Amino acid sequence: MSAPAELAPQTPLALICGGGSLPLAVADSVAAGGRRVLLFPLRGAADPRDYAKRPHHWLYLGQYGKFARIARAAGCRDLVVIGSLVRPSLWQIRPDIHALLALPQVLRAFRGGDDHLLSSIGKLVEQRGFRLHGAHEVAPDILAPTGPLTRAQPAARERIDIVLGFDYLRAAGPFDVGQAVVVSGRHVLAVEAAEGTDQMLARVAELRTNGRLHAPVGSGVLVKAPKPAQDRRFDLPTIGPQTVEGVADAGLAGIAVAASATVIAEPERLVAAADRAGIFVVGVPAPADG
Amino acid sequence: MSAPAELAPQTPLALICGGGSLPLAVADSVAAGGRRVLLFPLRGAADPRDYAKRPHHWLYLGQYGKFARIARAAGCRDLVVIGSLVRPSLWQIRPDIHALLALPQVLRAFRGGDDHLLSSIGKLVEQRGFRLHGAHEVAPDILAPTGPLTRAQPAARERIDIVLGFDYLRAAGPFDVGQAVVVSGRHVLAVEAAEGTDQMLARVAELRTNGRLHAPVGSGVLVKAPKPAQDRRFDLPTIGPQTVEGVADAGLAGIAVAASATVIAEPERLVAAADRAGIFVVGVPAPADG
Repeated sequence: MSAPAELAPQTPLALICGGGSLPLAVADSVAAGGRRVLLFPLRGAADPRDYAKRPHHWLYLGQYGKFARIARAAGCRDLVVIGSLVRPSLWQIRPDIHALLALPQVLRAFRGGDDHLLSSIGKLVEQRGFRLHGAHEVAPDILAPTGPLTRAQPAARERIDIVLGFDYLRAAGPFDVGQAVVVSGRHVLAVEAAEGTDQMLARVAELRTNGRLHAPVGSGVLVKAPKPAQDRRFDLPTIGPQTVEGVADAGLAGIAVAASATVIAEPERLVAAADRAGIFVVGVPAPADG
Repeated sequence: MSAPAELAPQTPLALICGGGSLPLAVADSVAAGGRRVLLFPLRGAADPRDYAKRPHHWLYLGQYGKFARIARAAGCRDLVVIGSLVRPSLWQIRPDIHALLALPQVLRAFRGGDDHLLSSIGKLVEQRGFRLHGAHEVAPDILAPTGPLTRAQPAARERIDIVLGFDYLRAAGPFDVGQAVVVSGRHVLAVEAAEGTDQMLARVAELRTNGRLHAPVGSGVLVKAPKPAQDRRFDLPTIGPQTVEGVADAGLAGIAVAASATVIAEPERLVAAADRAGIFVVGVPAPADG
């Protein structure tokens, strides 16, 4: 991880937008601070309906030249890449001449994990004069605070599951595996890898439906944390209203996330949904390293 | 883990049988060595069709008294508990007076992982005069040897994935999580927890169908190993013909298992299925502890 580059707040911010509502939350947060934002939704990842009412410039992954031309003309120097990026097929990528010059670098990225893909895109734009920032640097209010966000709070047995979950994620982190785990009664029920959090929660719901879980409904915790070696400019664990729905369907008691290192998408809707379902959402400070 | 108790081969062996074909493979292996075997299939776990042609005594989980009476009358002193045990609902358990005396112990077992459930059953019978053994002690020929079992062998890139997979399982082992992982191109695609290996493989197949994996078909490895702290008398990782089918459907190149610590169920059928599909199956010696 490099030290955060200094922001140039007088210039507009270029925001390359993957899927989900998070890019829009970041855009709104930055705009609320008085800074102009240029939106570059990615074809195949961002939903056109989300951008219909906002000025934007569509990009195919690989269209570096188009991006650089528009962003430079608008005076942008700072760039944020945010949102979900289902790994694109090579057919969906339209590398222009600028990206083709970096093709070996881009192809290498496809062989590693998602982190490599994102950080290779990052290096590519940095080498060409932009400064890459994490969404949490330009919009710190999107991060989970410390303590409960909801009326419900973890009971003693959930606090034990939460500690076990964070311990597990720390142990598994060096392997560039997922950022989430479900723990119930000191028992790891599910570990996220390539399938993502929503599908992992659906699996827990299915195990329960099939009678393979005997923990009572309303016990167990979804625990999310960044990987230890994660470059937080590219990828932060994120929860949103959909996560609360998945947790409720899986019969869990709540969600624990790493405070100041997890994005809360649509916090008002998330908290309302959690309070309706009686689910807790809590930000847990990272333990001191050692 | 306690040291293996000395076997009393002159007495018949009592075999408490969970689901799957493994208990029968153990029974056949022991019988082939000239030792009499008493079969105790577990209601709800063992398939009645598998036992129709063999003398047997059905047990509900918790029927310790029935088991002890029959086993003692036959002169048994050695006991093996083997086969899959989908976690039973409390309603399927019929504790008799003997098991009820140990009820707090049994209930505690339900709160921990599967290991706790099995080892609590083990302690219960040991306290009452039986000697519990691992299936691999009475039937060592059921374990994976070192080296390839199949015509296909892992290439260099699969050997890297295999090392990463064993490293991951070692790191995650202390958390009593699953015993298997899928690795492809140095990327952990799936981690097994409560859902079991077959369902984890189905998930990888689904990720591929949905276009979310871009590793070519015929790459990637299923890696299985015992948990570091696992009591091998109760639970060993197992592969069988069904595992080969799941690996083929997931588009992986092969299977790597911990040699001398993984059970190969129905080895002839497994090797034939793997050779037909061009999949490798290899036993990898455990690295020296350190």
